[in-house]
Amino acid sequence: MAFNKRVKIKSLLESDFVGQEVTLMGWVRTKRSNKNVSFIALNDGSTINNYQVVADPNIIDEETLKRITTGACIKINGQIVASQGSGQSSEISASSITILGDADPEKYPLQPKKHSLEFLREIAHLRMRTNTFGAVFRVRHALAYAVHKYFNDKGFFYIHTPIITASDAEGAGETFKVTTLDLKNPPLNEDGSINYKEDFFERETNLTVSGQLEGELAAMALAEIYTFGPTFRAENSNTTRHLAEFWMIEPEMAFYDAEDNQDLAEDFLQYVIGYALEHCKDDLAFLDKRAADEEQGKKADQRSEMGLLDRLRFVTKNKFERITYTEAIDILRNSNPNKKKKFQYLIEEWGADLQSEHERFLVEKHFKKPVILTDYPKEIKAFYMRQNDDGKTVAAMDILFPGIGEIVGGSQREERMDRLTQRMDEMHIPQEEMWWYLDTRRFGATPHAGFGLGFERLVQFVTGMGNIRDVIAFPRTPGNAEF
Amino acid sequence: MAFNKRVKIKSLLESDFVGQEVTLMGWVRTKRSNKNVSFIALNDGSTINNYQVVADPNIIDEETLKRITTGACIKINGQIVASQGSGQSSEISASSITILGDADPEKYPLQPKKHSLEFLREIAHLRMRTNTFGAVFRVRHALAYAVHKYFNDKGFFYIHTPIITASDAEGAGETFKVTTLDLKNPPLNEDGSINYKEDFFERETNLTVSGQLEGELAAMALAEIYTFGPTFRAENSNTTRHLAEFWMIEPEMAFYDAEDNQDLAEDFLQYVIGYALEHCKDDLAFLDKRAADEEQGKKADQRSEMGLLDRLRFVTKNKFERITYTEAIDILRNSNPNKKKKFQYLIEEWGADLQSEHERFLVEKHFKKPVILTDYPKEIKAFYMRQNDDGKTVAAMDILFPGIGEIVGGSQREERMDRLTQRMDEMHIPQEEMWWYLDTRRFGATPHAGFGLGFERLVQFVTGMGNIRDVIAFPRTPGNAEF
Repeated sequence: MAFNKRVKIKSLLESDFVGQEVTLMGWVRTKRSNKNVSFIALNDGSTINNYQVVADPNIIDEETLKRITTGACIKINGQIVASQGSGQSSEISASSITILGDADPEKYPLQPKKHSLEFLREIAHLRMRTNTFGAVFRVRHALAYAVHKYFNDKGFFYIHTPIITASDAEGAGETFKVTTLDLKNPPLNEDGSINYKEDFFERETNLTVSGQLEGELAAMALAEIYTFGPTFRAENSNTTRHLAEFWMIEPEMAFYDAEDNQDLAEDFLQYVIGYALEHCKDDLAFLDKRAADEEQGKKADQRSEMGLLDRLRFVTKNKFERITYTEAIDILRNSNPNKKKKFQYLIEEWGADLQSEHERFLVEKHFKKPVILTDYPKEIKAFYMRQNDDGKTVAAMDILFPGIGEIVGGSQREERMDRLTQRMDEMHIPQEEMWWYLDTRRFGATPHAGFGLGFERLVQFVTGMGNIRDVIAFPRTPGNAEF
Repeated sequence: MAFNKRVKIKSLLESDFVGQEVTLMGWVRTKRSNKNVSFIALNDGSTINNYQVVADPNIIDEETLKRITTGACIKINGQIVASQGSGQSSEISASSITILGDADPEKYPLQPKKHSLEFLREIAHLRMRTNTFGAVFRVRHALAYAVHKYFNDKGFFYIHTPIITASDAEGAGETFKVTTLDLKNPPLNEDGSINYKEDFFERETNLTVSGQLEGELAAMALAEIYTFGPTFRAENSNTTRHLAEFWMIEPEMAFYDAEDNQDLAEDFLQYVIGYALEHCKDDLAFLDKRAADEEQGKKADQRSEMGLLDRLRFVTKNKFERITYTEAIDILRNSNPNKKKKFQYLIEEWGADLQSEHERFLVEKHFKKPVILTDYPKEIKAFYMRQNDDGKTVAAMDILFPGIGEIVGGSQREERMDRLTQRMDEMHIPQEEMWWYLDTRRFGATPHAGFGLGFERLVQFVTGMGNIRDVIAFPRTPGNAEF
């Protein structure tokens, strides 16, 4: 006997069901009663909006009504009727209510009051039942879907690059080791080193920091590909911007140069943010208000000039500013905060790595829009970035967003074997371990480019959540692997 | 200067470009020449079909023509003209050709001849450039996209469940350890055990074997969710059916019972396979022929009764057979191979775990269609499956496919706290480590269900590839973590 015969609240609110007998199922958010009637706000996860259930104590027995408390799961049969009160246009008049699962008010942690984000992080298994996190995770879904839809519609192919890998050539950061060896008693070689021949993969392996290099391999066959998978950093960073486990989107395209790459990244970001604006209206309206309330708690000079929705619309409608690193250094060197020594790191000369304060100045104060920074000094960028003719810079790009800083990093890749191997030698990257990567330059090489987008940064930008731990279901950070 | 001004071959073949000047870029598959003309078969990854480039030695210089060898990457400017020969209706008459990247015929491994799948596995970084693997990975993309589209269109939310986890309560198999400890010199407690407090997460962690339990948490808030992410097994299985790293799809639905779950799984499988049939016509036609050729090499009694395409169409058009485990045991016990002792494992009594040979008999010989097997003995299933009223069985389902065996495993979940904890105790699963899972039964519980689909098994079924290592870009198996 199929049980799932319910109508979703989202459908109820989008179409006219008045007069129909339906079944609803969901969780009780609140109940208020007088002696004549109980009003129950029901949420079923399909939308941020609750639906009003009207329960007549002459029809619904007292024992059932008593068990209808915040967090309880209930099933309602009844008729949809036009609503008398304000708010929604319809409500359900319950002919029967079944308690599917109780939620003891003495024990259920999510009572109808304001909970801190810190507290909710400790009960991440329940926090999706709140308005804020329900909205965040519906928006996260919409963004993930938009990513796939964007690339699919453009003829890109989704590639699953490996999670466990023996390569850490990118040197993108500290990695997690993956092993089946007995940690207490690992097999040793004669010289006392660990004998990885005994490990599962017969070599040292770790969790990937990026699918880019493997993505390039696929792009040299299918031309336009993207990855969307988890990546890992074992950095001991307890910040609002870092996770040990996060999801990355990494498109790689044969036949793209640096400009094609910038065009794609800008179009892509505008598309996915526009998609969320179109498909998550109610959730974003809620998050917009939430962000506005939060702004009220800040000092006047710390407040954003734009609200969340305004900011999202602005980004989708305005071309990003494109400037070179060299131009950025000029702007920063001559900026007020630099002259007045307000920057923590003063910009003195070309070659300096840009800090978050500089990126934010460019985006939030100087240009007041997203900025694509290009052509960085080769010394501060990865070995695989294409060397420009000036001998000093590489065809890198970073896209900087207000509030977030770097949201995209990419480059045209160095397709010329001699330049690539020379740079690898300079940076002490062993060529023999990268034979497969070099093969793509040996056989049928072509100009190509790509970029990486940290998905959680994007979700932060779109939802306005300040802490990255609040946009992934079960965050992994130093000391934290619960659930 | 944007470089990517090409037309994709897929577009060329779908629309009429005759008379237009265009730019093509791609890789040379073959070249044949006489003294008057060279014909180049160009592939750009957008489709399995090559496009014919006609090069006149009076226009294209000899040095360039010489460098146009299999695997080289070239850029062609020219006019699209109606084709004289058979095959496609148009071709490009080259006015200029640029070599983007050479492929030395003495060194390039993918010469135009038949390579074994084993050989191609060793050069997985190049194998996507072959017809077979190009087709496989385009179909894989289409299936992945269909998964997202199916669930999105039904209002499900995509959840990223954690990859690194401290929970292995499901006991689904051997896990990989994840650590940042120094393997040679791990910190020890006074009793000599490893001091995991010093590890990154301050506890023992491993790679996930399933996102189900976390998926259930999300379903208790958002009602209908799915996961699609990598999962891991550290099992030393060197078979054509096992990977150490593979991708799983795991929907979890509040308010679904066992029958709802079966209905969803069947509809889902028919949808994604139908999607591939509709969107991957050329690739599947190629793979159909490839599979037919392979069948020729088999003994008559080993051959499939249906070709690949026939099999796919059959599955999308016929209702799956639904029988209980108990009914299956009756059928198997009375089957010819059981009576004639042809099964390796004879079915003697109720309670026996079904082997691959039994599953294949039911699907391929007895019912000749996909089978949903339900209501297994609780002893051979996981703790979280809902106990049936008979006290012996649980509301499990496995979906069995021809050639593949089990492609889906799922169940209604046990939502009743007392039954769940009793079963955990019987199976020695510590309740205290699962406090968060049990909370979903404590607060607002509801009937719910879900299933898991091994994505690579699905890709195998749709592409007809016999070895699971040939449907994932860079397979991870014992002793194998290259690329």
